[in-house]
Amino acid sequence: MIIKKMNDVPPQEVTMDGAKDVTVRVLFGPADNAPTFAMRVFELAPGGHTPFHTHPFEHEAVILDGDMAVVTESGDKPVQKNDVVLVAPGEKHQFKNRSSTQPARFMCLVPIAYQK
Amino acid sequence: MIIKKMNDVPPQEVTMDGAKDVTVRVLFGPADNAPTFAMRVFELAPGGHTPFHTHPFEHEAVILDGDMAVVTESGDKPVQKNDVVLVAPGEKHQFKNRSSTQPARFMCLVPIAYQK
Repeated sequence: MIIKKMNDVPPQEVTMDGAKDVTVRVLFGPADNAPTFAMRVFELAPGGHTPFHTHPFEHEAVILDGDMAVVTESGDKPVQKNDVVLVAPGEKHQFKNRSSTQPARFMCLVPIAYQK
Repeated sequence: MIIKKMNDVPPQEVTMDGAKDVTVRVLFGPADNAPTFAMRVFELAPGGHTPFHTHPFEHEAVILDGDMAVVTESGDKPVQKNDVVLVAPGEKHQFKNRSSTQPARFMCLVPIAYQK
């Protein structure tokens, strides 16, 4: 069994094209021998966002804090704490922080094969 | 894309042997065509707990609220909000609410094949 405090896991800057002011903490991934899926938490600075992109695997996400939106091909969907999001494989999406003053955090899980 | 408010998903009583005062909300599972893993949130009434048991698949969990412990074969490990827990396949475990007055909540994900 592995127990971690989220904030003890060092954040890494997300340098992917199209990302702005985002860090990620890989809570459970290949280094922990997670068998099936990886658990990560992302922090978005005010105005920060992930890339508007698509990939062949799903996301399952839960909003932890902040005033966020999920951007889709049919517009922005506002999301708040305790909202959960399933992005299907191949669906274009972006997570963004709508606040200009407060950070936002969400947890996002992916199949383990796609976690570096 | 599917977006849900956690509390809009109806809670179901957990009737498994050894469970006490626990409900589960299946946020993403087979009914949502979740491809790889299922997302569930459990609420433990004061003094409530899941069974002390083992199974051939992992859990990845995050504590959302409350004063909880994960029970292991080597004793109780206290856990709080923002702690994350990886229970490996075959590891004996139980999640319990240590409070006698407040509820506790944790999110727990499993491989989709094990979600009814």
